[in-house]
Amino acid sequence: MKLKTIALALALAAVAPIRAYASEWRDVDGDNLVVMDMAHGRVLIELSSQFAPRHAERFRALVRSKFYDGKSFYRVIDGFVAQGGIGEGDDKKLPDWPALKAEFDRNIGIDVDFVALGSPDLFADKVGHVDGFPVGQSRKDKRMWLLHCPGALAMARDNDPDTGGTEFYIPIGHAPRRLDRNLTVFGRVLDGMQYLQKLNRGDPKVESGVIQDAARRDAIVKVQMAADMAEAERPRVQVMDPTSKAFSEFKEQRRNPAPEFYKKVSPNDICAFNAPLRMGKDIPAE
Amino acid sequence: MKLKTIALALALAAVAPIRAYASEWRDVDGDNLVVMDMAHGRVLIELSSQFAPRHAERFRALVRSKFYDGKSFYRVIDGFVAQGGIGEGDDKKLPDWPALKAEFDRNIGIDVDFVALGSPDLFADKVGHVDGFPVGQSRKDKRMWLLHCPGALAMARDNDPDTGGTEFYIPIGHAPRRLDRNLTVFGRVLDGMQYLQKLNRGDPKVESGVIQDAARRDAIVKVQMAADMAEAERPRVQVMDPTSKAFSEFKEQRRNPAPEFYKKVSPNDICAFNAPLRMGKDIPAE
Repeated sequence: MKLKTIALALALAAVAPIRAYASEWRDVDGDNLVVMDMAHGRVLIELSSQFAPRHAERFRALVRSKFYDGKSFYRVIDGFVAQGGIGEGDDKKLPDWPALKAEFDRNIGIDVDFVALGSPDLFADKVGHVDGFPVGQSRKDKRMWLLHCPGALAMARDNDPDTGGTEFYIPIGHAPRRLDRNLTVFGRVLDGMQYLQKLNRGDPKVESGVIQDAARRDAIVKVQMAADMAEAERPRVQVMDPTSKAFSEFKEQRRNPAPEFYKKVSPNDICAFNAPLRMGKDIPAE
Repeated sequence: MKLKTIALALALAAVAPIRAYASEWRDVDGDNLVVMDMAHGRVLIELSSQFAPRHAERFRALVRSKFYDGKSFYRVIDGFVAQGGIGEGDDKKLPDWPALKAEFDRNIGIDVDFVALGSPDLFADKVGHVDGFPVGQSRKDKRMWLLHCPGALAMARDNDPDTGGTEFYIPIGHAPRRLDRNLTVFGRVLDGMQYLQKLNRGDPKVESGVIQDAARRDAIVKVQMAADMAEAERPRVQVMDPTSKAFSEFKEQRRNPAPEFYKKVSPNDICAFNAPLRMGKDIPAE
């Protein structure tokens, strides 16, 4: 028995070096952590350079140029999306921010650790997580992509796929998965969805939900990259590593959080939960 | 050709009488229409006596006794549910409102018109609509039930299934479909989800999301049955009939609302849209 235990410990040790981070928790990189302050509260967003490098870089640059400060969420459709930016319409040209080539999906590569959910999906051949982001895969195409779960950060565009620039949106209702691979998802909200839910809504029947009275549009007060903030003010966020045993247990627990209460057990729905995270004082001292 | 056309017209005429309402739109019965006024705005809810007669009758009686007036949404978990009522905990006994027998599902009967969605589902053998309510079916059990889509009205309970009484909840995030057939759904929000989204949230890690500071709980100002309101003040709502051609076209359009924009087409997700409705001045004069 003891020998067996030692053998197992060695086997685990041999596997460990392929992991980028040793612990069950990953610190979100300050250069990917967007801090968006709204009147209702603070929204924290993680950018994904692995799935949409051009869009992540663009958003980072927009934030650093203070592009979004004082702009607004001008198109908010209850149960669907909140769209923010300048909101001046498709005809407005911004020479500083030329249209981006679409990044709807990417190749299935070994540079990322995809961990399968272990439940079927209505839209993708396979779903799972990469660094806490919900991800879909197609066997046929050998492609993978970030999903339109609630809180996804994605780029609006015109009919031409390669026209994203500055206007972003975030799903605020049931996951609009039909948007998967039709638009570029390049991040996700880690914390503060409740403040986006408080945004004033537009009428979906009028101008695609654009709020006609500009005074009713909620302002985006200030947006910063966490890396640029003074250390004392910089938020710290850790996301549970999907390759960890803790994450595997978390998913199993999600299937039936309380067996004494729930008698029927269902598959896991990839968009019905978020990867666990911990912030600020909940992060244990090293 | 002409004969064939006439034969088809006659066949349709022969089928028509089984329909309960001739038009594409159904007026929501005032005895099923709940009018819930919150500080943020008005929420309209339709009760379903066909799927949960005991729970619908209980809710109607609670409304008419003014039970909910001045109570609150005291347990609000972002992305999951908003729970309202007295919020005094499981130990509080209310002799006037004894525990109800669960109504998790019902038999598949010919008293309702089930219209299949025509897309697969992750949780049920088959999904579709009955009178605008999203519904699941099990072939094996020959049962059907109302789904936990966003806006479902359902009854909270203790571990024992037959313990619902007065405390209700409404999903406010991605559909928590794992609750299907584990709790009794007995209605759905027709309008005003955006006001429920503005509710103050609790911390899901503290007391299951119960808002600890009572002053932060949003009040339920007043709840009435539309049938009891003066005619001039009574809201009028019509829901599109799922058996109509218009509803069939609406579902097809939902699969790809803009072919020039969306290049990839997905199955319909039963919880990603609501049956169309029209209200007030949008209802044409007869």
